[in-house]
Amino acid sequence: MVSFRVAAAAAVAGLASSAVAQTFQRLGGCPTLGCVFPPDQQDFLAGQFFDIRVEVHAPVNGSEATNGVPDKNFALTIGKVGGATQPAAKFFGVTEPKLETWNFTWYEDLFAKDANKPDLVNVASKAYRRVALYEPGEYEAVLSYNGTNTTAYWLVRDIDEVRKTKNVLLFIGDGMTTNMITAARLIAHKQINGRYQSTMAMDKFPVLGHQMTHSLDSFISDSANSATALYTGHKSSVNALGVYADSSKDPFDDPKVETIAEIFHRIWSGHVGIVSTAFIADATPAALTAHTRDRDQYGAVIDSYLHGIVNYTWTPWNGPDVLFGGGAEQFCLPKLGGGPTYMGLDYYKVFGDAGYKVVYNNTELQAASSSERLLGIFSVSNMAKWLDRNVYTKNLLHQKNSPDCSGTDAVDQPGLKEMTIKAIDVLNTRATANGSNGWFIMSEAASIDKQMHTLDYYRALGELLELDDTVKASIAHLNSLGVLNETLIVITADHGHGFDVFGNADTQYLNAQKDDRSKRNAIGTYQNSGESQYINTGNLRYTDSFFPSNWDPRYTLAQGLGAHPDERENYQVHKDGPRLPATNITGFPATDYFVNPADNPTGFISNGTLPTNAAQGVHSLTDVPVFAMGPCQETFGGVYNSIDIFFHIAGCLGLSRPNGPDAGSNSTVGAGGAGSGYGGHYAGPGNWDKPHNGVPGYQQYGEDAPKYGGPPA
Amino acid sequence: MVSFRVAAAAAVAGLASSAVAQTFQRLGGCPTLGCVFPPDQQDFLAGQFFDIRVEVHAPVNGSEATNGVPDKNFALTIGKVGGATQPAAKFFGVTEPKLETWNFTWYEDLFAKDANKPDLVNVASKAYRRVALYEPGEYEAVLSYNGTNTTAYWLVRDIDEVRKTKNVLLFIGDGMTTNMITAARLIAHKQINGRYQSTMAMDKFPVLGHQMTHSLDSFISDSANSATALYTGHKSSVNALGVYADSSKDPFDDPKVETIAEIFHRIWSGHVGIVSTAFIADATPAALTAHTRDRDQYGAVIDSYLHGIVNYTWTPWNGPDVLFGGGAEQFCLPKLGGGPTYMGLDYYKVFGDAGYKVVYNNTELQAASSSERLLGIFSVSNMAKWLDRNVYTKNLLHQKNSPDCSGTDAVDQPGLKEMTIKAIDVLNTRATANGSNGWFIMSEAASIDKQMHTLDYYRALGELLELDDTVKASIAHLNSLGVLNETLIVITADHGHGFDVFGNADTQYLNAQKDDRSKRNAIGTYQNSGESQYINTGNLRYTDSFFPSNWDPRYTLAQGLGAHPDERENYQVHKDGPRLPATNITGFPATDYFVNPADNPTGFISNGTLPTNAAQGVHSLTDVPVFAMGPCQETFGGVYNSIDIFFHIAGCLGLSRPNGPDAGSNSTVGAGGAGSGYGGHYAGPGNWDKPHNGVPGYQQYGEDAPKYGGPPA
Repeated sequence: MVSFRVAAAAAVAGLASSAVAQTFQRLGGCPTLGCVFPPDQQDFLAGQFFDIRVEVHAPVNGSEATNGVPDKNFALTIGKVGGATQPAAKFFGVTEPKLETWNFTWYEDLFAKDANKPDLVNVASKAYRRVALYEPGEYEAVLSYNGTNTTAYWLVRDIDEVRKTKNVLLFIGDGMTTNMITAARLIAHKQINGRYQSTMAMDKFPVLGHQMTHSLDSFISDSANSATALYTGHKSSVNALGVYADSSKDPFDDPKVETIAEIFHRIWSGHVGIVSTAFIADATPAALTAHTRDRDQYGAVIDSYLHGIVNYTWTPWNGPDVLFGGGAEQFCLPKLGGGPTYMGLDYYKVFGDAGYKVVYNNTELQAASSSERLLGIFSVSNMAKWLDRNVYTKNLLHQKNSPDCSGTDAVDQPGLKEMTIKAIDVLNTRATANGSNGWFIMSEAASIDKQMHTLDYYRALGELLELDDTVKASIAHLNSLGVLNETLIVITADHGHGFDVFGNADTQYLNAQKDDRSKRNAIGTYQNSGESQYINTGNLRYTDSFFPSNWDPRYTLAQGLGAHPDERENYQVHKDGPRLPATNITGFPATDYFVNPADNPTGFISNGTLPTNAAQGVHSLTDVPVFAMGPCQETFGGVYNSIDIFFHIAGCLGLSRPNGPDAGSNSTVGAGGAGSGYGGHYAGPGNWDKPHNGVPGYQQYGEDAPKYGGPPA
Repeated sequence: MVSFRVAAAAAVAGLASSAVAQTFQRLGGCPTLGCVFPPDQQDFLAGQFFDIRVEVHAPVNGSEATNGVPDKNFALTIGKVGGATQPAAKFFGVTEPKLETWNFTWYEDLFAKDANKPDLVNVASKAYRRVALYEPGEYEAVLSYNGTNTTAYWLVRDIDEVRKTKNVLLFIGDGMTTNMITAARLIAHKQINGRYQSTMAMDKFPVLGHQMTHSLDSFISDSANSATALYTGHKSSVNALGVYADSSKDPFDDPKVETIAEIFHRIWSGHVGIVSTAFIADATPAALTAHTRDRDQYGAVIDSYLHGIVNYTWTPWNGPDVLFGGGAEQFCLPKLGGGPTYMGLDYYKVFGDAGYKVVYNNTELQAASSSERLLGIFSVSNMAKWLDRNVYTKNLLHQKNSPDCSGTDAVDQPGLKEMTIKAIDVLNTRATANGSNGWFIMSEAASIDKQMHTLDYYRALGELLELDDTVKASIAHLNSLGVLNETLIVITADHGHGFDVFGNADTQYLNAQKDDRSKRNAIGTYQNSGESQYINTGNLRYTDSFFPSNWDPRYTLAQGLGAHPDERENYQVHKDGPRLPATNITGFPATDYFVNPADNPTGFISNGTLPTNAAQGVHSLTDVPVFAMGPCQETFGGVYNSIDIFFHIAGCLGLSRPNGPDAGSNSTVGAGGAGSGYGGHYAGPGNWDKPHNGVPGYQQYGEDAPKYGGPPA
């Protein structure tokens, strides 16, 4: 572990202030009254674009009260640790930004919230836009204000420039934990006397790791800030996409960090593909191109997919090669039943005018050419679940979710597998045709998480099995295209839910009991858990894929979460569609959730362990698994931070620029030197294994890859 | 994955019988009416001793009813697949065993149990004792009865004889999951803006794996059959130690399998150490030497530690070098307040007469010589928890648990660290003095599991942190002894509990609310989880170890399990000692658990999700983590079966005998050839790196170790 200076101010602040880092925070990442973003202890990729924002806070009341007047003469200096520091504008060669002022309020704790006694804070701030650091090593950013300092230590990681992989295929099982993978294996793969006759595709990966998902400022994360960590190497606050969250009201002025997609495109003209089973404005895909403190800015997210960031000078971007998912409501005009869309525009038309072919269902997806850019929107809101598309198909009817917003049903939706295989075809075709720049595809199984939130365990496990089937098919497809050994494949999650299986349930017995306590006696634990009934029933469907042949046996899984709203549980699959466990029966505007009277009527009630305004389960703390195969696979073994995923992928793609921006780049960036842009140390098409400018060429994974390991530090 | 023939009878049985493998089973591992143990799909270490038992079942009533007369003319044949088969007695060179008969009853399901309508089954059986297979490859054991067959396919793994490690240190965190490790890290290690300033010792291990814990015949396991899988490579039924469970009443006649400790001792005269914080007759240590279908046979377990198995010809055993733990009640005479002990004997005296020095507290432990065998029993029942020994020390008083059974308090108990360091000293001293045979130590943090069972999360996490501190200290100690690079260190669990953290709890707010639903609103999820309050409070105690400095901050962890009895939860540490969440308030003989009125009076009630006769939480399904360092470390990466832990350790210790028993061995064993015993391919003291008899010598880990990896099959 790199020895890292700890900012003294932060250490002191931890002792002095009790108003920091609890149920509410004045501002995450800012324990003192002087805030630097990026904050202390952050890592950077050499050459990665980012914004800086500093804020001086002057609380008017509360436990941190001052005279309420922030010091507008604050100063920010930057320099290498042990070297000369300069004022930030000078260091980066940008004009001094103008002073901004605003105020905000927050509650110090739940008592203050109940009593409606907020703290008011006046703020003075500046933002330095689109700068970069190149030289590896430790930097200090010192904000001086009110006669004191806040120091942020930043580390530019020393990563070589060598590109080791042509392509990257990143699978995200949203909310997926090892516990869930174990349950999915149990229902889809047969075992005899404890020996599995087959295992998950992800079980077979050569390298296993765990990543720690802790947010910047809270130990639980959401999909927005988790994705930010995975795509940028910078942790942030819950709900933030590609930015550190500042305290201003404007959700778009927060300090940005460049994402893997943006850097890959800027440096290599790399091709990017984005695939999700969620509504496509959802956080996990959005964090690839959007930069906002507020994940709910759906319109801006959709626009960023095509145009990147337009309200600030940022990084060149002209859209992914494929964008597949749900969420037609951000594309169709309101008058057609969609909307609101960004600026009220028809975004099918906006993408079409930019040269995209638009497809609306699986038939059209399969028929589409692989050489043009493709927008595929397949439903309103989240796409249908595997279980409903393949088993309980009547649930596809009466959804009124056709992606043309006409109110008809979207009954021909592709699954994650169809979308991902098509994405590989398009990306690989276009990347080869345009000079072998390689590609980066992110493919998200979004509804593992969404169905865990609603305690619909079987639907969630079906989504996980679909992810595994997609992994299996993708490997085979990459192999048939001859690019498997040039592709780094990583499967991971963004965060977890506290799910596990603890026995079986005799549903016939449970349904026959009259009272709740007797129903609970249907659960068999330990030896009484017996064996999985999900696959030992004869004809296996899906002979090439692994899914249960029967989702409704007599003996089901007793499973659940430590964190849940009030619910009624009978451990049986919901045949009529996704589950709704709790409802707000006292009516709007109350947010007081009780058991949904219509859910699981044969079950027993378990009252919740969450706040009563929580309709669903929530994310959990646990480290999540990482499976890696291909170039650089060995870097993904062991236990590490979520941000390391970014640094390993970026390093493998050769995106680090420790020697300064590439020669001949055609845009300026505040970096203490020449601008950045295209070009660089790429060995050229067909020369993946040859040295270039003294830099070793592409190395095959496995045989020559450096081994990790050795005794612990 | 090895291609493995699937026994046709098992496949058919899965379809035909609905009375198999559900809440109850006629007999685990026997889906048909002809039973072979070891059953189909089991793996063997070449040369490992085992028993065979076959049973023919004739149900008298129920869904499998026959004429009730088992075919006493059954026959068992054995042979290599594709080769000649012989009658079992002839194959192994043993006398034909005598026929045994008995009967038993079981309930087909919960309805039958409620109605008290059991099935009666008549049984005819034989047991072939202490046989072994040497030649790698696939064998078939065919039981012919009633004109039909049951076939078991057995695989003798092709593992070379080369010994690659001198020592093995196996840590078992009982019930420990990745989720728990994450929570322990959160409360004991400081993070700044998402970056941990220190991490767990286990986080630093070079190799990470997951093991699948599925039992032989149920998907949930207990500590007994999990330990059996880890120590023998054979899965079994819940509650079974070192045997497959047959259907006879006698808990000691079940077919045995030789354990890692027994084989290591037999082949190398290897030294063994057994350490646990549980009562020492508990399953995880017991499974190293005991062989019984019933883990509650505590007296027999204690006797087996010293004498091994005496009621059958088995494997030579003369006791471990160290045996440390709690459980004085199995040692003290009943008239002194202990007991019942095995045969009513004073087991302190029995061990003392066998040459053991006996110690009763940490002071005596530290003072004991490292050159003699050592019995250390430090309390009645389970040993004190780290939290009570180090923080809430008044809880050590009034326990009346002194290991001399005098009814005084055991206030000077060692922790897992003290016991493990001492074990290393004794084992290393004695192993070196006696010819460098090397040693195997198992060290168990038993109360992670025990405290999770009682929903006492903080005590459980304290036990986990103690395990991690023990790992850290053990590595340093092995290094100072100069044997670190000759020691394979493995940390794993036996099974999990469905635990996770899902937010924080403002305990001040919670305690101030008057009703349950309002109390729940004290929980902060996502961004409101804030940061860990456990370490940011100033003075860190234990400057060399990582434990929280404050177990009682205002903002605690909101955490829990999906499976729990009725409980009242307030998310606060129990200062008065281990938690008792549920009590049987209707009184004996009822087993009807409700919330303990005295537990967490300021909390809110969550009614349970388990049967009402469950006083505690239960084990869960999840794969559990494996951390490995040292010789053969690379074999522990990726996702695999629990039994693979045994095969990798055994292979690393050079215990496989694919070429037949060692020359000059001085005992006979039914193996189709000469007997087995001492001697063999050991390179001799000081010759760890030199070839011997054409077999390569000891290989340093890391540099020359074979790499795992490559594309999935």
